[in-house]
Amino acid sequence: MFYDPIWDKQHEECGVFGIFDVTLDIPRYTYWGLFALQHRGQESGGMALVDGENIKTFRGMGLISNVFAEGVPENTGHIGIGHVRYSTTGANNPQNIQPLAVYTSMGQVALAHNGNLTNTRRLREELDRSGTAFQTTMDSEIIVNLIARSRKATIEERMMESMLRIEGAYSLVFMTKDALYGGRDPHGFRPLCLGRMPSGGWVLASETCALDAVGATFVRDIQPGEFVKITKCGITSTRYAIMKKKQVCSFEYIYFARPDSIIDGQDVYQARLNMGAEMWRETKYDADLVISVPDSGTTAAIGYATASGIPFNHGLIKNRYMGRTFIKPDQKQRELAVRMKLNVVRSVVRGRRIVMVDDSIVRGTTSGIICNMLREAGAQAVYMCVSAPPVKYPCFYGIDTSVRKELIAARMDVEAIRRHIGVDKLHFISQAGLCRAMSHIPADDTCLACFNNHYPTAIPVTTEEGEKYALEGNE
Amino acid sequence: MFYDPIWDKQHEECGVFGIFDVTLDIPRYTYWGLFALQHRGQESGGMALVDGENIKTFRGMGLISNVFAEGVPENTGHIGIGHVRYSTTGANNPQNIQPLAVYTSMGQVALAHNGNLTNTRRLREELDRSGTAFQTTMDSEIIVNLIARSRKATIEERMMESMLRIEGAYSLVFMTKDALYGGRDPHGFRPLCLGRMPSGGWVLASETCALDAVGATFVRDIQPGEFVKITKCGITSTRYAIMKKKQVCSFEYIYFARPDSIIDGQDVYQARLNMGAEMWRETKYDADLVISVPDSGTTAAIGYATASGIPFNHGLIKNRYMGRTFIKPDQKQRELAVRMKLNVVRSVVRGRRIVMVDDSIVRGTTSGIICNMLREAGAQAVYMCVSAPPVKYPCFYGIDTSVRKELIAARMDVEAIRRHIGVDKLHFISQAGLCRAMSHIPADDTCLACFNNHYPTAIPVTTEEGEKYALEGNE
Amino acid sequence: MFYDPIWDKQHEECGVFGIFDVTLDIPRYTYWGLFALQHRGQESGGMALVDGENIKTFRGMGLISNVFAEGVPENTGHIGIGHVRYSTTGANNPQNIQPLAVYTSMGQVALAHNGNLTNTRRLREELDRSGTAFQTTMDSEIIVNLIARSRKATIEERMMESMLRIEGAYSLVFMTKDALYGGRDPHGFRPLCLGRMPSGGWVLASETCALDAVGATFVRDIQPGEFVKITKCGITSTRYAIMKKKQVCSFEYIYFARPDSIIDGQDVYQARLNMGAEMWRETKYDADLVISVPDSGTTAAIGYATASGIPFNHGLIKNRYMGRTFIKPDQKQRELAVRMKLNVVRSVVRGRRIVMVDDSIVRGTTSGIICNMLREAGAQAVYMCVSAPPVKYPCFYGIDTSVRKELIAARMDVEAIRRHIGVDKLHFISQAGLCRAMSHIPADDTCLACFNNHYPTAIPVTTEEGEKYALEGNE
Amino acid sequence: MFYDPIWDKQHEECGVFGIFDVTLDIPRYTYWGLFALQHRGQESGGMALVDGENIKTFRGMGLISNVFAEGVPENTGHIGIGHVRYSTTGANNPQNIQPLAVYTSMGQVALAHNGNLTNTRRLREELDRSGTAFQTTMDSEIIVNLIARSRKATIEERMMESMLRIEGAYSLVFMTKDALYGGRDPHGFRPLCLGRMPSGGWVLASETCALDAVGATFVRDIQPGEFVKITKCGITSTRYAIMKKKQVCSFEYIYFARPDSIIDGQDVYQARLNMGAEMWRETKYDADLVISVPDSGTTAAIGYATASGIPFNHGLIKNRYMGRTFIKPDQKQRELAVRMKLNVVRSVVRGRRIVMVDDSIVRGTTSGIICNMLREAGAQAVYMCVSAPPVKYPCFYGIDTSVRKELIAARMDVEAIRRHIGVDKLHFISQAGLCRAMSHIPADDTCLACFNNHYPTAIPVTTEEGEKYALEGNE
Repeated sequence: MFYDPIWDKQHEECGVFGIFDVTLDIPRYTYWGLFALQHRGQESGGMALVDGENIKTFRGMGLISNVFAEGVPENTGHIGIGHVRYSTTGANNPQNIQPLAVYTSMGQVALAHNGNLTNTRRLREELDRSGTAFQTTMDSEIIVNLIARSRKATIEERMMESMLRIEGAYSLVFMTKDALYGGRDPHGFRPLCLGRMPSGGWVLASETCALDAVGATFVRDIQPGEFVKITKCGITSTRYAIMKKKQVCSFEYIYFARPDSIIDGQDVYQARLNMGAEMWRETKYDADLVISVPDSGTTAAIGYATASGIPFNHGLIKNRYMGRTFIKPDQKQRELAVRMKLNVVRSVVRGRRIVMVDDSIVRGTTSGIICNMLREAGAQAVYMCVSAPPVKYPCFYGIDTSVRKELIAARMDVEAIRRHIGVDKLHFISQAGLCRAMSHIPADDTCLACFNNHYPTAIPVTTEEGEKYALEGNE
Repeated sequence: MFYDPIWDKQHEECGVFGIFDVTLDIPRYTYWGLFALQHRGQESGGMALVDGENIKTFRGMGLISNVFAEGVPENTGHIGIGHVRYSTTGANNPQNIQPLAVYTSMGQVALAHNGNLTNTRRLREELDRSGTAFQTTMDSEIIVNLIARSRKATIEERMMESMLRIEGAYSLVFMTKDALYGGRDPHGFRPLCLGRMPSGGWVLASETCALDAVGATFVRDIQPGEFVKITKCGITSTRYAIMKKKQVCSFEYIYFARPDSIIDGQDVYQARLNMGAEMWRETKYDADLVISVPDSGTTAAIGYATASGIPFNHGLIKNRYMGRTFIKPDQKQRELAVRMKLNVVRSVVRGRRIVMVDDSIVRGTTSGIICNMLREAGAQAVYMCVSAPPVKYPCFYGIDTSVRKELIAARMDVEAIRRHIGVDKLHFISQAGLCRAMSHIPADDTCLACFNNHYPTAIPVTTEEGEKYALEGNE
Repeated sequence: MFYDPIWDKQHEECGVFGIFDVTLDIPRYTYWGLFALQHRGQESGGMALVDGENIKTFRGMGLISNVFAEGVPENTGHIGIGHVRYSTTGANNPQNIQPLAVYTSMGQVALAHNGNLTNTRRLREELDRSGTAFQTTMDSEIIVNLIARSRKATIEERMMESMLRIEGAYSLVFMTKDALYGGRDPHGFRPLCLGRMPSGGWVLASETCALDAVGATFVRDIQPGEFVKITKCGITSTRYAIMKKKQVCSFEYIYFARPDSIIDGQDVYQARLNMGAEMWRETKYDADLVISVPDSGTTAAIGYATASGIPFNHGLIKNRYMGRTFIKPDQKQRELAVRMKLNVVRSVVRGRRIVMVDDSIVRGTTSGIICNMLREAGAQAVYMCVSAPPVKYPCFYGIDTSVRKELIAARMDVEAIRRHIGVDKLHFISQAGLCRAMSHIPADDTCLACFNNHYPTAIPVTTEEGEKYALEGNE
Repeated sequence: MFYDPIWDKQHEECGVFGIFDVTLDIPRYTYWGLFALQHRGQESGGMALVDGENIKTFRGMGLISNVFAEGVPENTGHIGIGHVRYSTTGANNPQNIQPLAVYTSMGQVALAHNGNLTNTRRLREELDRSGTAFQTTMDSEIIVNLIARSRKATIEERMMESMLRIEGAYSLVFMTKDALYGGRDPHGFRPLCLGRMPSGGWVLASETCALDAVGATFVRDIQPGEFVKITKCGITSTRYAIMKKKQVCSFEYIYFARPDSIIDGQDVYQARLNMGAEMWRETKYDADLVISVPDSGTTAAIGYATASGIPFNHGLIKNRYMGRTFIKPDQKQRELAVRMKLNVVRSVVRGRRIVMVDDSIVRGTTSGIICNMLREAGAQAVYMCVSAPPVKYPCFYGIDTSVRKELIAARMDVEAIRRHIGVDKLHFISQAGLCRAMSHIPADDTCLACFNNHYPTAIPVTTEEGEKYALEGNE
């Protein structure tokens, strides 16, 4: 495990992948697909494959390359699904690794889930009462139990019925020994796209970068409220739910997704360039240099530089190797830990007035250390631009908000944050600017709840975080 | 994993252990208890412990010393249960490791199971139909689902109701975060005993050797059809089922149990000495020397020697280190594999007429190789005595009979087996002799089904093996 | 081990680090220093530390974070040296991991070495003849044996005498239980710098980025032919050899060193920007976009963009997670392997005439695949600029030239390479341009032997590669 | 590592094995041979094999089955040597694992060594002075350096010259890429025997049990002062040294060797039976039962029982699985640790006057705990017989005497030891009785130095232990 506590970022919880192809080495392609989605979760991962008449799972802790350090399973069957997972520390539990495979009266079903349900507590209590023996704390186990208990005649009807019962954010891939299925919640919070292999098979993936990795051609995004079934006979699509107001997560574009992905028609790279340009329009800082906090802030920084005409350069170099810091918990060692990961290019920053672009601020401590490092290296002024608006409210749709108490923007206004970090100027992109940057997505189709407290679904007071949130005062 | 395919023995499937003590380091004592039961299962193992308000499981493949190679968990709570498991190759699956812990509407329950249910298929189909999503292929998962679905008011009533629904052999230990429970099937096929710690706590274990290992005093055996609950307030006992005809597994005394255990009032060591004496009475072989196939045949060999006055000596030395053989599957390499594990003491056997005592014969191939080794070393004659009657029928109560097709006694009579092995004389203990040897157990209270085809329960035709057996002709 | 065969780069062989400080936790700081030098070698690594009166080594295969996955050693003593290593496949041997520690008549000595000796064969034969029992195939073992056999009165005189006997490239750190030493060959092929801790201690490191990582201040570069000794009494410097013509390896600036390092007075980042600018001056390509092959080509690409006014953008995204490709050795799977690591941002490249900057071309196959990917994504034209001149001759000073037969520039002229890769135009920086880019280093002080065949030392015909090279015709 | 600190035994330091056969799978046979010698050392092990033109070593910590957990190397060449090692805690160091392979001016040589040299310090100082850079603290490294520095014309002359320079106990196997060699010191302290494969090849091994394990026929013991060379042309023997007074280690027969081995013409099993008979003659204890401390005391116990007519039975059962005790260092937990490993068969010992036979007493603490366990189980009297005389003096010939300060017999007389252990009577076999028991070895040919202080070689005052011993007063 190489989770780096100094990296002051929110976390996506998952990435999913599924493939159906009668000609390919499915375990290998599933591995490549998951590898391309590794940025969506690094704590555990796995795949489910068909072995003869049975579905088998292969799962483990750590990066996909660790889980399959001894090699991928032998070529088995023509269907595979896979999952990469980030989980909060408390639930960092071997039993919670996905995909989850179960035996039901209709045969085996395996499932991989990206997102977060908002009616978990209610469903779990209901299932508890009717006698379910849960073995994990995963939302996915709720879904498979709903499928198992459904009275519908076919497995796909059972899947759809179950999706109608769950609420919140979910992009799902299922498999039986004969078919691959995909489904997306009626709001479409989390991405899910469809691709086609040159050999005729089909791929489902959280992001298009996974299609590119396996050589698939992008076909289209799975629509909110859509369910697809892929068998030897081809693909069929069902609208299992009335599509609600589309509510694509804006953080996918700000930070989570890979820049080479296109999600719901919006190119992520272009969106980030646009965010930089919007921030230029909103700030017009008089500066000598644009730099980024690598790597996620770089595209927006180039956007700022291009729009402003101020040159972009790498003022900070990131150590690309994963390492543990072995730090003692004091400020001096914490600074050493940041220095292990980032270093200033003195010749670039010395004597310059710098615009430093980052994609988000969670606690602000790392930003403060970086600002100090820039000043020590001779920076004349540091103006910080953040390509996300201030994050003030919890996310119930799949982003880890376990650190919410630590969210600096929930406790301080921008000026106070600026002083805390120690930069000369500080600007957060406006919500309007953010929406403009995502130019291919209507402003109304974006979920901005963590910025503006307008949740697209009922407030999930039945979840623990929801309760806490309600108690703390959800206006 | 160090399972040794040359070791021509049947396999017990499990050992269980439970402890409730408010003063002791529970993980450490659970480890010691499981270590003492390691002979009952070497393929996987684990423990469930209370951590704060939750039950956590710690499980893994291999010997208990491997599973906890990094150390036992920190002292957590005052209840622990544990399990060691042998499983047939096909089901050698990380997901099938016990104990199994689940969340139910009445809180968390963990379970460890020794034995084999005979109405598995029926229960599983019923649970499947009512919407259970099974994650494993273990009998234990059926039991926890019955508990979860029970409508009884208390968790112990649910446990007892579930035990009334299952049939076959089971010795069970359960735990919740507040209590330790134990139960034994109405026939009492598998052992389960109760001990008391000097510090006042209680222990449940498959064998008394585990009580000795943790310093507990033997209190009594759990009775067939009995259920006990242990809390801070002490122990309570309930007869949850009408005790049926007691049917203690005779193979526990012949081979499975440790010789220093006392099971259902019968000292195992003395039973084995008696088996040797009975075999002397049944054979009166004129010989110079009694030897054993180490280690399990040794006590019966000493019994034979003592009764006959023929001296006992170690004619075969066993390599006590675990090792892989890396053999190629031909007869020459197979012989080398046996030589890796066993060696003849030439000076002991040379020129002697030898009575060689073993506890059972499954396929007979290893016996044949050993007989050859003795002759090569100069033995004048080899008379083989086997302290189990010929095993002709499958066991449905917890012994691996997956090799039944290979059971030599199911295919050949004694004379044919003798020729196959190549010994000069061959004697299997009589069923009557075996029952006499278990002098503290009424002859009728012993399960001899694998010898005489008299099954104490309905024939479990709903299990796969039962079906096969029925088809092949169960008289 | 995550060496990626698709990555078409030459390899540096090592990085070294040493620290002397009586106040700090030496193992931790050594770890951080090595972590900062990880780019110089990823196959193995280790450290030597003082434990009481003894020097102990801690070494292993893989990244430093793997070697110390269980934690760094407890704080032991006030001296530490460390090493990271890349080695050619044939010598990928646990016994060859550094640092190497030996017992001599003057006590224990440990050594870490960056570089490559050119009189190895002669020295080894001489030592063989006089009765040395070599346990490894490392140059370092020759050095410690020269020290052990020296007749000089002090350990430092012995070190210096040994350095006078060896020829070629070496930057060395030594330690005894009382002192830290550093030495650099008379040509200064490989870098070595000196830093000071705020706490008063001293640091030796291959690059200044390691000083930054541990919070040390850069003092100066160790001079070619200089030997330093650091004890509790401070630092002393000796010129152990007449400084020969300085011959700094130009590839350190082109590719090996981290951009945030300053080597022999030349800022690496600025040198790379300059290389880009020089290439603009040499090409004046009429294009719409400058992109780089990430990550090592990026700085030169920004230099090209800045000089030319053509916008820079990320046209290729690199997957930052390490993974195995599990490829079968055919062209289709090879392409998939490149796709696993790199992906095109279609919206950036579509319809554009692109200048693609890379730092070097070894075999050219990956460049060809990337060019194809760009064209598939709609690039109108691809002009490739390479910030190293064509590599035609072997390096005897520490760069792996085991693939020399595969060096495309040794076999083809530029036009042929262009056709092979499939780009529309191809330019290699001129040697003069490269020298101009390293503006703080006199042109004569740079080793360009792999480009122009002018070796600063005698041709090392006694090494295997040298012999081969001589046979093949060294003009 | 499963070294069990509660097991109160002295330790042999090594076992060696070598094979030359042009037809067999050498790695596999070497593995089997080492597995048969595992009792001689469990802390590390390895083998050296010929791979093409080179010798390669494969070594690791733990049991041979751990070292080769991933499989043995592919079949490579027709020569292999191997080693198993026990080492004292201080030197439990990966670099000290054998075999040791080096490059010399005469090519590669590998070596495995059983024994202990007595002129180590002098040789090491001499080699240090002449410039050897030692990388380990092993005696073996001295030997290979002597070989490397020898001026003799052939490698075998160099080996023999080196053996003439070293003093003390050594049984050695060497290999080059063309030949296998074996040598034994002029006193013959440690065993070494020669066997022949049915396929025509040759085997060298510490004990005959390893010949049996690989299917070899015993040819003869290597004589003290003999050196053999085995090549494709067959075997040649040289008497490289004048055979001194033969001094076979008596502890090989008491405890170290496997009972199925024959060493220097003396059957180990018969020697142990004889020790039991001698003890009966020396004690004539009036008792009801003879038991042993398993496993090493069992043969002598059977000897005692046979001679006396008192019945033998297993009063103590040993847990055969390896496990860690996780004990806290107090007496109560220490007792629990012994209980983990040993258990009393109450029905056997209750009410009996017991003769308990063990092979040696080092500290006496475990014996005391066992005695308590027997009394708790109802033993009426415990008479202890020990088949080794009291160990009072250090061994310089290969037995770990690092615990000498803890040797109870060096500090107390027999009556005091008896009271310390708490037995009713205590008898150590007499030296004369021990010599009589080894009936095939002339009494004068046995090394009894640890009992009687008559060292067959000069007192090794140059070793650390020797110095301590000299200071403490060697009469």
